[in-house]
Amino acid sequence: MSRTYDGGQDAGLLSPVRAGTPIEAHVDDRAWLQAMLDAEAALVRAQAKLGAAPAAAAAAITAAARADRFDTRALALAARETANPVVGVVQALTRAVAADDPAAAEFVHRGSTSQDVFDTGAMLVAARALQPVRTDLERACAALAVHAADHRDTLMVGRTLAMHAVPTTFGLKAAGWRHLLLDAAERLDRVLDGGLPVSLGGAAGTLAGYLEYAGLGDGVAPDTADYIDRLGAAFAEETGLALPVLPWHTLRTPLADLGAALSFTAGALGKIAVDVQILARTEVREAAEPAVAGRGSSSAMPHKRNPVLSTLIRSAALQVPLLATGLTQTLLSEDERSAGSWHAEWLLLRECLRLVGGAAHTAVELVEGMTVSPRRMRENAYLNGDRVASERVAAVLAPHLGKGRAREVISEATSEADRSGLPLSAVLGAITEVTAYLTHEDLNRLLDPAHYTGAAGALVDSALKR
Amino acid sequence: MSRTYDGGQDAGLLSPVRAGTPIEAHVDDRAWLQAMLDAEAALVRAQAKLGAAPAAAAAAITAAARADRFDTRALALAARETANPVVGVVQALTRAVAADDPAAAEFVHRGSTSQDVFDTGAMLVAARALQPVRTDLERACAALAVHAADHRDTLMVGRTLAMHAVPTTFGLKAAGWRHLLLDAAERLDRVLDGGLPVSLGGAAGTLAGYLEYAGLGDGVAPDTADYIDRLGAAFAEETGLALPVLPWHTLRTPLADLGAALSFTAGALGKIAVDVQILARTEVREAAEPAVAGRGSSSAMPHKRNPVLSTLIRSAALQVPLLATGLTQTLLSEDERSAGSWHAEWLLLRECLRLVGGAAHTAVELVEGMTVSPRRMRENAYLNGDRVASERVAAVLAPHLGKGRAREVISEATSEADRSGLPLSAVLGAITEVTAYLTHEDLNRLLDPAHYTGAAGALVDSALKR
Amino acid sequence: MSRTYDGGQDAGLLSPVRAGTPIEAHVDDRAWLQAMLDAEAALVRAQAKLGAAPAAAAAAITAAARADRFDTRALALAARETANPVVGVVQALTRAVAADDPAAAEFVHRGSTSQDVFDTGAMLVAARALQPVRTDLERACAALAVHAADHRDTLMVGRTLAMHAVPTTFGLKAAGWRHLLLDAAERLDRVLDGGLPVSLGGAAGTLAGYLEYAGLGDGVAPDTADYIDRLGAAFAEETGLALPVLPWHTLRTPLADLGAALSFTAGALGKIAVDVQILARTEVREAAEPAVAGRGSSSAMPHKRNPVLSTLIRSAALQVPLLATGLTQTLLSEDERSAGSWHAEWLLLRECLRLVGGAAHTAVELVEGMTVSPRRMRENAYLNGDRVASERVAAVLAPHLGKGRAREVISEATSEADRSGLPLSAVLGAITEVTAYLTHEDLNRLLDPAHYTGAAGALVDSALKR
Amino acid sequence: MSRTYDGGQDAGLLSPVRAGTPIEAHVDDRAWLQAMLDAEAALVRAQAKLGAAPAAAAAAITAAARADRFDTRALALAARETANPVVGVVQALTRAVAADDPAAAEFVHRGSTSQDVFDTGAMLVAARALQPVRTDLERACAALAVHAADHRDTLMVGRTLAMHAVPTTFGLKAAGWRHLLLDAAERLDRVLDGGLPVSLGGAAGTLAGYLEYAGLGDGVAPDTADYIDRLGAAFAEETGLALPVLPWHTLRTPLADLGAALSFTAGALGKIAVDVQILARTEVREAAEPAVAGRGSSSAMPHKRNPVLSTLIRSAALQVPLLATGLTQTLLSEDERSAGSWHAEWLLLRECLRLVGGAAHTAVELVEGMTVSPRRMRENAYLNGDRVASERVAAVLAPHLGKGRAREVISEATSEADRSGLPLSAVLGAITEVTAYLTHEDLNRLLDPAHYTGAAGALVDSALKR
Repeated sequence: MSRTYDGGQDAGLLSPVRAGTPIEAHVDDRAWLQAMLDAEAALVRAQAKLGAAPAAAAAAITAAARADRFDTRALALAARETANPVVGVVQALTRAVAADDPAAAEFVHRGSTSQDVFDTGAMLVAARALQPVRTDLERACAALAVHAADHRDTLMVGRTLAMHAVPTTFGLKAAGWRHLLLDAAERLDRVLDGGLPVSLGGAAGTLAGYLEYAGLGDGVAPDTADYIDRLGAAFAEETGLALPVLPWHTLRTPLADLGAALSFTAGALGKIAVDVQILARTEVREAAEPAVAGRGSSSAMPHKRNPVLSTLIRSAALQVPLLATGLTQTLLSEDERSAGSWHAEWLLLRECLRLVGGAAHTAVELVEGMTVSPRRMRENAYLNGDRVASERVAAVLAPHLGKGRAREVISEATSEADRSGLPLSAVLGAITEVTAYLTHEDLNRLLDPAHYTGAAGALVDSALKR
Repeated sequence: MSRTYDGGQDAGLLSPVRAGTPIEAHVDDRAWLQAMLDAEAALVRAQAKLGAAPAAAAAAITAAARADRFDTRALALAARETANPVVGVVQALTRAVAADDPAAAEFVHRGSTSQDVFDTGAMLVAARALQPVRTDLERACAALAVHAADHRDTLMVGRTLAMHAVPTTFGLKAAGWRHLLLDAAERLDRVLDGGLPVSLGGAAGTLAGYLEYAGLGDGVAPDTADYIDRLGAAFAEETGLALPVLPWHTLRTPLADLGAALSFTAGALGKIAVDVQILARTEVREAAEPAVAGRGSSSAMPHKRNPVLSTLIRSAALQVPLLATGLTQTLLSEDERSAGSWHAEWLLLRECLRLVGGAAHTAVELVEGMTVSPRRMRENAYLNGDRVASERVAAVLAPHLGKGRAREVISEATSEADRSGLPLSAVLGAITEVTAYLTHEDLNRLLDPAHYTGAAGALVDSALKR
Repeated sequence: MSRTYDGGQDAGLLSPVRAGTPIEAHVDDRAWLQAMLDAEAALVRAQAKLGAAPAAAAAAITAAARADRFDTRALALAARETANPVVGVVQALTRAVAADDPAAAEFVHRGSTSQDVFDTGAMLVAARALQPVRTDLERACAALAVHAADHRDTLMVGRTLAMHAVPTTFGLKAAGWRHLLLDAAERLDRVLDGGLPVSLGGAAGTLAGYLEYAGLGDGVAPDTADYIDRLGAAFAEETGLALPVLPWHTLRTPLADLGAALSFTAGALGKIAVDVQILARTEVREAAEPAVAGRGSSSAMPHKRNPVLSTLIRSAALQVPLLATGLTQTLLSEDERSAGSWHAEWLLLRECLRLVGGAAHTAVELVEGMTVSPRRMRENAYLNGDRVASERVAAVLAPHLGKGRAREVISEATSEADRSGLPLSAVLGAITEVTAYLTHEDLNRLLDPAHYTGAAGALVDSALKR
Repeated sequence: MSRTYDGGQDAGLLSPVRAGTPIEAHVDDRAWLQAMLDAEAALVRAQAKLGAAPAAAAAAITAAARADRFDTRALALAARETANPVVGVVQALTRAVAADDPAAAEFVHRGSTSQDVFDTGAMLVAARALQPVRTDLERACAALAVHAADHRDTLMVGRTLAMHAVPTTFGLKAAGWRHLLLDAAERLDRVLDGGLPVSLGGAAGTLAGYLEYAGLGDGVAPDTADYIDRLGAAFAEETGLALPVLPWHTLRTPLADLGAALSFTAGALGKIAVDVQILARTEVREAAEPAVAGRGSSSAMPHKRNPVLSTLIRSAALQVPLLATGLTQTLLSEDERSAGSWHAEWLLLRECLRLVGGAAHTAVELVEGMTVSPRRMRENAYLNGDRVASERVAAVLAPHLGKGRAREVISEATSEADRSGLPLSAVLGAITEVTAYLTHEDLNRLLDPAHYTGAAGALVDSALKR
């Protein structure tokens, strides 16, 4: 390969679920680099607030801390030498600051350690990346609320174990999807609200380096506790992140929590996708993805329109829980810094964020533009004639015949209806055990799917109050 | 094999982490059966409260709903016919009730569906199983608080990427372990507090069957919403579980949440285990598992005492996140009831609960009985002489020499100390660039690991306030 | 709970996919215990062959090594003390032998270590458990071969991205399922053929203990190599397992291979299950699970027949790959024996074997009894009228109009057919660009799905030769 | 963000294990694009061989099929419209060909489908990417063979459950590492040898489109079978890939096999990494990573040299098995093409390849440059004095005292040695039960770790023959 190798150019070709969506700019290498630089700048500003660094140095470092001044590929290559990119970032930032203000360069990364900067950067990336996800979840919920309200009473068949079960409404299905997305939003909010802390520990989690530079190196001075409290608070304020109780270099709660919330969100979006795919099936055709010129076309089949949005979402939902498992396994980080477990988190976290971000954005498009066919839903509900509400007749007969006998009667009548092709009501209407209690009108009414949607409407009402 | 096959007798031989611990009785097949029976009994009591069933029937069903009256193996075999055990349980319970009170038998499982009973049962199992886990986490935290306080200032070396880094204290390590367990307890509490709902949906999530039996089958009567609200509330009250907004047959939030919380807990316990194993290593010997006669002996080596408790805990921590992944993937449950995804949850949930329960119990034994050797910790901290605090001298020299030059001086001096076998203080004490600013006394003090534990003590104090 | 706790009685209630299937007896605790006892007995017989133990001792130990003489629950409880069950097994076996022949008791576990016995036992369990799996795969393949041949030319629609694509035949689908099961069988055979070795390493993998008891303890005698070769060969012969090149206490190839092969098999079976569920859907009804009285009934809906076999299989296929991941992760076993990674394998391996065994057995029932409806397949293939073969007309027109224009014409005509409800052939028959090259007869023939199954038949023929 | 967004520029910043290694160029988006273009070009060349396309068209398409002529970012964005990149690639390639030779453009992608091109491309990527992996495994094995031979008899302590067990040699450890890498190489070779097939199925796996363009659209002509055989063979020959028995759009054996082999390789490399990290620990110091200026330096601690290579390798080994799980789960691909499962494979496969490639390359550097300290190994082996071979004395005494009594004597003597600080030989030398059979000289010899490495040397010899 003769081209000067540029390090990959992963442009999203293998991950269309996120290609071109807002999440990309929040999680790419440049965004990650910017977040590390932001962490360095915030750290020295925090130190300056406490008098441990000159304000001018903080200003100079902040001014220099712009990702577009640095070469991410060169930094990636340098990262091999230390197993993490921070050492190289610090060197590059120091040089950049020194070019403008040599004195200020002395205050870059003072008392700090790679993991403080990387982890604070990772939390900044997560905080920024979750914003578009949250926005998209809200938009999707709003669209689903409209579907739920519009179709509160739209008859459709409920399907269990792949078979027609009893009637339900499309409104209830849409309300369920929304409910799951609200659960996801709640779990992401829980992470956003205090779950993304700054990392401030120094070389082995004692903050000794920070203290030393503040002239409190022995750690026994009465104001040690006060200093670390104020430094943490200032760092948290400068970054907008939370203040942790303890350094968390190997107490990986934030990663495990992010993994769980992102995995949940992917799954919640995936549930919608698998349901839409079933509703879109050629034999079912109860719902369709938004029709967009060119969208969903096949390279082979001119007549075909593929449910591409749900396909993209499902592809993400299949990947994220596996990636996120690694973010829980990282809890087994040994010692005061792990030799490998920490390093395994980075790619996994980025892809979890990116896939979820892409899937959420895609879901907005899907649910906002989805078309629903009440006609097809009704046709399918009546596909098995009047059999889908047979449970109901069993319930009505049970007090008269006993639960067991009532089931038996219905079972036999259903078999007979299958054999003869007659409506179930006709078969039942010829059985004296039945007609002793139910008229033909009763049977017709009881077996009409449209009259047996139970509390679907009331459940939609309740769910929409959330 | 000539014996009449009894279905397995999985007695825990392959899972010593939980063999004999309290969790076992809460999650075995009999416990699960009891929970399903409890769900059936609570359902009819709830219906009786609302006048939809006679109180006498509720009492008779409750009386009959005792797992020891049924044969779990026969029920397991019957479960193959319907892919879940509830159909068989309902039949067996109906027969048992009928033997005493034929009229009451009519009210078993009225209007219900397998998944309502199974899922409510699963939530009861989880609620019951999490009690001993919570108790054990509290006991472990209490023991760790004592370690943290006792060893607030016990010098030990901090280790990062497998190497000695800078000093820390054992108190801070113990405080970190406790912190992680508190995080786990918090996550379990969040699940226990509203995260374990009853399942009440009927055949396809509309509660139509329940309504029919209450004479509200059309679902349009003005009191439909009221009835389902009251039925849900009564069922929740009778079971002690939470009341969900919507039926959750394919909105699997409770399973995903349980998976996440259990996975977290396993990981938190596992962190302690991997750390203890490092501290217990023959070359390190800073901590040891409780010495119990016979414990930890080897089948081959008389001289050896293995860290068996941390081994057991770690074995659980390696398994649970993988099993729990399946509890997140279940979010992709299609339709109104999944044909396979639901069924994949059961074994995974049981093993997650059982392994975590066993690991938590084992961890109590570990941390309560663990012996700590401050002497060995100190020896190891000084293993590299005075090199472990070299970061500190770099910090002190930086304002004088510049950050880069200070690091260089220390780096070269460290290499020289390695080559010559001299203490680092001696090497530095011969460099004029250093002695221009630091006396020999300064160097000795600055390089003494015992004087460079930073804010470890203050952090322990803060952490113990949680 | 007042009953004397018996350790769980996991009778399969939560795992109906395997309840009552042949695999159970091969992998339960008793089977595992028997395999460990078989390993102990084979070891001493091997030593006796080499003159390192008396033949009478070998006979006495072999006679005593019967699992039904021991209490698995007591052994499970004892396993907590050493983190593995072997120490307890050795003690119990030694006592049992001593009761009959005190001199022979001296030769139990001579020179050995827990992991040798446990791992050899695990390989015996795997070897025995894979037999019924292999048999069931063969039966399933035989049944699928009949389906493939019978339906070589049975028209059905091919579905891609949930939509009708172009025609295919059911024979090709069945041949594909069989092909995947043959792939699985091949992978299991590869494991069975040399992939399940005895474990023979002694305390740290040097066989020093075995040598010492043979009077070769220094390991420098010229016949050391010869002795270990002969001991290994004899042990392999006595167990029927393979002879490894090196002790594999922490070289976990056999576990990773088993995990991969079992995971593959579960996935192959799962593919059939997800396809059958789609074909069985109420709207599709092209295939149905075998009708067995009582099978597939619902606790709520008398009219419903659930695809329970495919549901059970799919439930296993969703679990096994996650469990098997742990069997690959075990490759990261540290040192000469891992403190946790080894212990994490046992439950995972057992469940992988048990779930796959249950799924394979269930699949036999499914494919042998499955009913196929060529009539419904044909109806569905024509569901979209003549549109499903439109790709073909595009191909025919391409040489005349150019590929792009041909696609455009078909695309527009399809839209027009959708709007008007006319057959596609009618719409195309009114376009001069088309009729310039194709007569109405041409169009009817080209668009007939039955004439566009491509090489489906030929592919079935090829596939059945495998 | 004001910059024109370029799609991410993932330069490897978060994945230093592979940054700058040869694998990168084989798996980046451009490589993947090139592979898809190669598939298109090979397909038309194959068709030309059979007379189904003009040779000139094949030449023109081959000439145009150069990735550097296309914009991967634009193609990634276009991929969202169809859920896969092939539609866009075909359009772009068609335009590029048409610019030079409009007639040839008609022959691009003739009769084909997206998945044929993408999957063939993926197999090409895998085949190319596995080359450097194989080369690196061979180099690593060669280096390990030297370590194994050089240190065949280098005494070190065997460690089990984190504790000193009995002696072994470093040669045996290195031989074990090599053995595992050879297992990995064997599994990769198995995939390379026939496991990477072309994909040739057409729209729904019947090859109907290909046949139509060859004038065999009805699929009943006697030469249909012959044509598809020849087309497949030609396509395989042009790509260098294998010829599959059946189209494998939803028979995902190649993906599952790749996943298993890559996961195995990652684990095998990871085993070396975790072992090296233990040997490198400050308290152990038996081995060290190659010393390279600047490598392994810490951002905080001048004195520290981190084991960065093993850290990088371990980080990959922790990720790959999780990612690869998705490549097994893809076996559950529904229908004739999955709506999501296929799409979930791409990123996972690329990262598995890239991480394994990076880890293998890093491992070469690690094992070629690793320094071993026989002196430290010996010191550590004697750390517990003469206790580490106590198993041996038990074995020698067993025939005299009985196995149980012999263990008891050693156990008590070990405790006494612990209490008193005396050598075990001294304590045993004062026990008449012992001295009845063993002289002081016997005891000293038997307890000398250097004389108790068992068959370690012989095992190294055997292992190196592989």
